[in-house]
Amino acid sequence: MVGNTISTKLIQLGHFVKMGSRTVHNQKAVEWANKNGKNASEGTFSNAAEFGEIIFNCTSGLNSIAALKSAGSENLKNKILIDIANPLDFSKGMPATLGICNNDSLGEQIQKIFPETKVVKTLNTMNCSLQVNPSMIPGDHDTFLSGNDEAAKNKVKEILTDWFGWKSVIDLGDIKTARGTEMLLPIWLSLMTKFGNPDFNFRIVRKNQQ
Amino acid sequence: MVGNTISTKLIQLGHFVKMGSRTVHNQKAVEWANKNGKNASEGTFSNAAEFGEIIFNCTSGLNSIAALKSAGSENLKNKILIDIANPLDFSKGMPATLGICNNDSLGEQIQKIFPETKVVKTLNTMNCSLQVNPSMIPGDHDTFLSGNDEAAKNKVKEILTDWFGWKSVIDLGDIKTARGTEMLLPIWLSLMTKFGNPDFNFRIVRKNQQ
Repeated sequence: MVGNTISTKLIQLGHFVKMGSRTVHNQKAVEWANKNGKNASEGTFSNAAEFGEIIFNCTSGLNSIAALKSAGSENLKNKILIDIANPLDFSKGMPATLGICNNDSLGEQIQKIFPETKVVKTLNTMNCSLQVNPSMIPGDHDTFLSGNDEAAKNKVKEILTDWFGWKSVIDLGDIKTARGTEMLLPIWLSLMTKFGNPDFNFRIVRKNQQ
Repeated sequence: MVGNTISTKLIQLGHFVKMGSRTVHNQKAVEWANKNGKNASEGTFSNAAEFGEIIFNCTSGLNSIAALKSAGSENLKNKILIDIANPLDFSKGMPATLGICNNDSLGEQIQKIFPETKVVKTLNTMNCSLQVNPSMIPGDHDTFLSGNDEAAKNKVKEILTDWFGWKSVIDLGDIKTARGTEMLLPIWLSLMTKFGNPDFNFRIVRKNQQ
């Protein structure tokens, strides 16, 4: 769902997008590509990683490492990897827990396994409709950025603001700060249960900045 | 620091407050009591728990269970315990981690150990100056509530709004939802490092509520 939403937005913006799956001709990927014109294509994770200048990790968090290994470190080398996934584990009943957290994060694990890839964690703290259409919620609200490479973070900030329309992007620091954003998921899930919908976001309100 | 801030505010509001410590005549507690007039007193955790109609747990999170055991389950029985503590562990270097999280929380542990006490988790997601003076940050921002007893939560909501001035209190649900608020601490600490001060708070912005 996240991959579909992000890919569709990128196509609408005029970019070429190859959606990756475990196998070539994945039914949902083919349907997506057929619906999205000549700039849209599909293939394996490896095909998609080789094709992309910038890679979005929109896989299910507990499967992200396996998916990225199948994409191949050579195909990811020197590229920006925008990591949107959360390592949520729904298999042990509710409330869902995180498969990685506290003294580690999915973002850090990916960065450690792919040291030549520029991992930037962002957009993992809100629903996917909102990720590509922040103005669907009125007023000021934030997305966060974590990563070790300043140039990569600047590029991702540009994607967030100029492409997706985000007005506020808070750079938290290096990839370790991904722990903090991934650990927002438990309260996010409680709020979604309470409100009955995912149409909300976090805002950091400051004393000296309105 | 949290205990001092909360106690001083309660005294200013006209309440009687006994500040509890490990030992009677704790130097800082005596100084606080001397400075705060005839309604302010100090004693052991057990003295304070016996004295109070409502108990605030403002101890350091990793020591809270020991402090509350020393307060005594009989002294806490049938009372509301407002749990403000976070189980932060700074002993393993930075970034700080949580000693309890993900599939458990300090709030839940306290409720489990003291089943006849009405544990309400709140105010643990912001600096103590802000806890008792929410208007120091302009605009709308939130505090959260977790607990199993509806009447206790209603009383705590009244304390937050009528005594401390909170305009927005979000009831997340039962005490298990304390996991979510305690797990806000890692991003809170990143933001404090980034901003260089603790004068900020979380706001949940919704599509259909401005």
